[in-house]
Amino acid sequence: MKAIIANIGNEILFGSVLNTNANYLTNKLTELNYDVVNHTVLKDNREEIINFLDNNLENTDLIIFTGGLGPTQDDLTKFTIADYFNQNLISNEELEEDLKKWFKDHNLELTPNNLRQALIPERAQYIYNPYGTAPGIIFEESNKIIILLPGPPREMKNMFEESVIDYLKKNSKQLSESKFYGITGIGESILEDRILDLIAKEDIDIATYAKPGEILLRVTAIDENHSVRNRKLEYYENIIRSRLEKNIFTYSKASLIETVANYLIDNNITISSAESCTGGLISTNLTNIPGISKVFYLGLVTYANEAKEKVLGVKKETLEKFGAVSEETCTEMCQNVRKILNTDIGVATTGIAGPGGGTKEKPVGLVYTGIAFKDKTVIVKNYFSGTREDIRIRTVNKVFQMIREELFTSY
Amino acid sequence: MKAIIANIGNEILFGSVLNTNANYLTNKLTELNYDVVNHTVLKDNREEIINFLDNNLENTDLIIFTGGLGPTQDDLTKFTIADYFNQNLISNEELEEDLKKWFKDHNLELTPNNLRQALIPERAQYIYNPYGTAPGIIFEESNKIIILLPGPPREMKNMFEESVIDYLKKNSKQLSESKFYGITGIGESILEDRILDLIAKEDIDIATYAKPGEILLRVTAIDENHSVRNRKLEYYENIIRSRLEKNIFTYSKASLIETVANYLIDNNITISSAESCTGGLISTNLTNIPGISKVFYLGLVTYANEAKEKVLGVKKETLEKFGAVSEETCTEMCQNVRKILNTDIGVATTGIAGPGGGTKEKPVGLVYTGIAFKDKTVIVKNYFSGTREDIRIRTVNKVFQMIREELFTSY
Repeated sequence: MKAIIANIGNEILFGSVLNTNANYLTNKLTELNYDVVNHTVLKDNREEIINFLDNNLENTDLIIFTGGLGPTQDDLTKFTIADYFNQNLISNEELEEDLKKWFKDHNLELTPNNLRQALIPERAQYIYNPYGTAPGIIFEESNKIIILLPGPPREMKNMFEESVIDYLKKNSKQLSESKFYGITGIGESILEDRILDLIAKEDIDIATYAKPGEILLRVTAIDENHSVRNRKLEYYENIIRSRLEKNIFTYSKASLIETVANYLIDNNITISSAESCTGGLISTNLTNIPGISKVFYLGLVTYANEAKEKVLGVKKETLEKFGAVSEETCTEMCQNVRKILNTDIGVATTGIAGPGGGTKEKPVGLVYTGIAFKDKTVIVKNYFSGTREDIRIRTVNKVFQMIREELFTSY
Repeated sequence: MKAIIANIGNEILFGSVLNTNANYLTNKLTELNYDVVNHTVLKDNREEIINFLDNNLENTDLIIFTGGLGPTQDDLTKFTIADYFNQNLISNEELEEDLKKWFKDHNLELTPNNLRQALIPERAQYIYNPYGTAPGIIFEESNKIIILLPGPPREMKNMFEESVIDYLKKNSKQLSESKFYGITGIGESILEDRILDLIAKEDIDIATYAKPGEILLRVTAIDENHSVRNRKLEYYENIIRSRLEKNIFTYSKASLIETVANYLIDNNITISSAESCTGGLISTNLTNIPGISKVFYLGLVTYANEAKEKVLGVKKETLEKFGAVSEETCTEMCQNVRKILNTDIGVATTGIAGPGGGTKEKPVGLVYTGIAFKDKTVIVKNYFSGTREDIRIRTVNKVFQMIREELFTSY
């Protein structure tokens, strides 16, 4: 079945907001066996929305609109679409009560504008929004499903997970099934080389998606019969496993960071971090994972040399002789941060993320990453390319790769 | 003038790649005074590209395509578009020589496929690509500019900066001008209520974009005459300033975090942070800003109570009597982290981000945010709603709001 994602929002067309909704929805719809054929971003403009529907409605089974459901005058997605499908808007009593309660609970004044949010097209259901005041809308017309969700990603995502997925599952017929593999330690072209013969097979579809330091490999079996699909996936899993075992960190869509963090939690391996150039990204990534508090004891962001000395106990001589960006400093950082609360692992980063601060000897992109684990300390000298953001992300990824390597060989 | 951005690529429609090209191009085109009216992502499919051109060409002055310019069989953007505009493809000698040299330099075999990249539509210019083998293409047909750029962001961005901007500058006429305001401390509907009369004005266009804890307000004046535009913007700025002065944190597109961080840098106000529930997000956000190392001395992520005691010096009695999530703990956290390296400001967060860990007295969403500044300590008890991620983001935003309030009233 075909799906189209349409994001209504001047903020995206003004460049102030990155369109992460389209990416999120594409991933989810793909899992639900939809073939996403088009993303479109449109202005909050009646004519553009109508024009879009005229041009696209015939070629799809599902359109998800996000954005333009707010209480303000330029939020006209709901009104335009209700009109387009000749549906009157009717105020929903439950939603009206909810709105009044929400505004009272939040000590805010309920303006007439806000009551517009209780209006629902007459042949539609509403989708409850526990995180905001704009409900979603879902209806079917001539065999097409039309869904309207709010633009703010956290509201949209939660509503999708809690309400839309079940609705679509009931309405979709499964024709394909996928298995995912998380691969690390080799590049995309080497991976492709190793499975070139499988990519050529006609009874499965293989795709690779590279992210910094890791590749997601998807193997899809297409067949109406459930057990045929499963048999194919199993057959190819054995082949892939035999060729790539060492590089597979997960048999799921989980990222390297999620996989490693959950491994730490499940095995009660405690960790502390000392970050310089990554500035807190390692601890932010770790603390994104629910349950991490059990094993993540301490994160230090020691940007200033004084902090490295005073808080982390890096020797003054080390900093003076080798500099903050050096193997020696990195070694003391990961060893010392581990000792502060006696965690199993200590990790550290120190480097030059740019854009300024590079020299000929220590160019932008030079980053030392370190791990102290049991009696062992491993330091890697990396040269990363790209922007400040790229370099920071690649560094974090490298640290998680190093943790994985230590853990998966030691345990 | 109107512009449309079209990205050709199955990888985006499979959800594996975030469409950052559209965002980048939108920002650049907006600066060049184009009104970006539509983003579309299409499959590498001849019919879809033709259908897209049929539906959109009339309504725009410029279309930029990215992607589908590679050497493989499914890269058909160039061929389809040349056909659409009835242009033959002619092999460009310079490009052929470049390609041969590139493959020789990289020790790669030049396949016939690769030579397809030297083909250019007969009425087009090519855009040199110093970072890859796919040249860009630019031509005009019936007063429309059509530009084709490769999909990889690094190649696309560099070609845009080095070649396309100059071309468009020569061909664009400025018709509109915008002023931006960053607003905090009030919600979107209250903001709209306060400027409802301005929104109704026909000689300007006003839009608001809400993010957690802040709103970007854009006022656009449309007129062919530069000084008329400026006069309008000034006139409305005076009105907006008089109504919202207290809530305007910047007269630019900068976020609250950027504004506050750059204020710290410019005024040499040093800062340290102690984070519990935000887990490093404050330091990550601060260290996203180039130049912050001058003023950001130390970030502590003290997840475990032991870390709060041992590294941050929070009293054992405080933790036992009031708990980690309490006004008293938060007070000691921000005061103590400030003292470690004697920074001007110390900030702290402690709370329950969920999804687990909440109790009746201390529910998920209860977060204390604190700032110690000179002789003053301010602690705010917040109840945030939403997911773990929402609560963490709202907490970070609240801390930056508090820094702003202290700074902007004290300095």
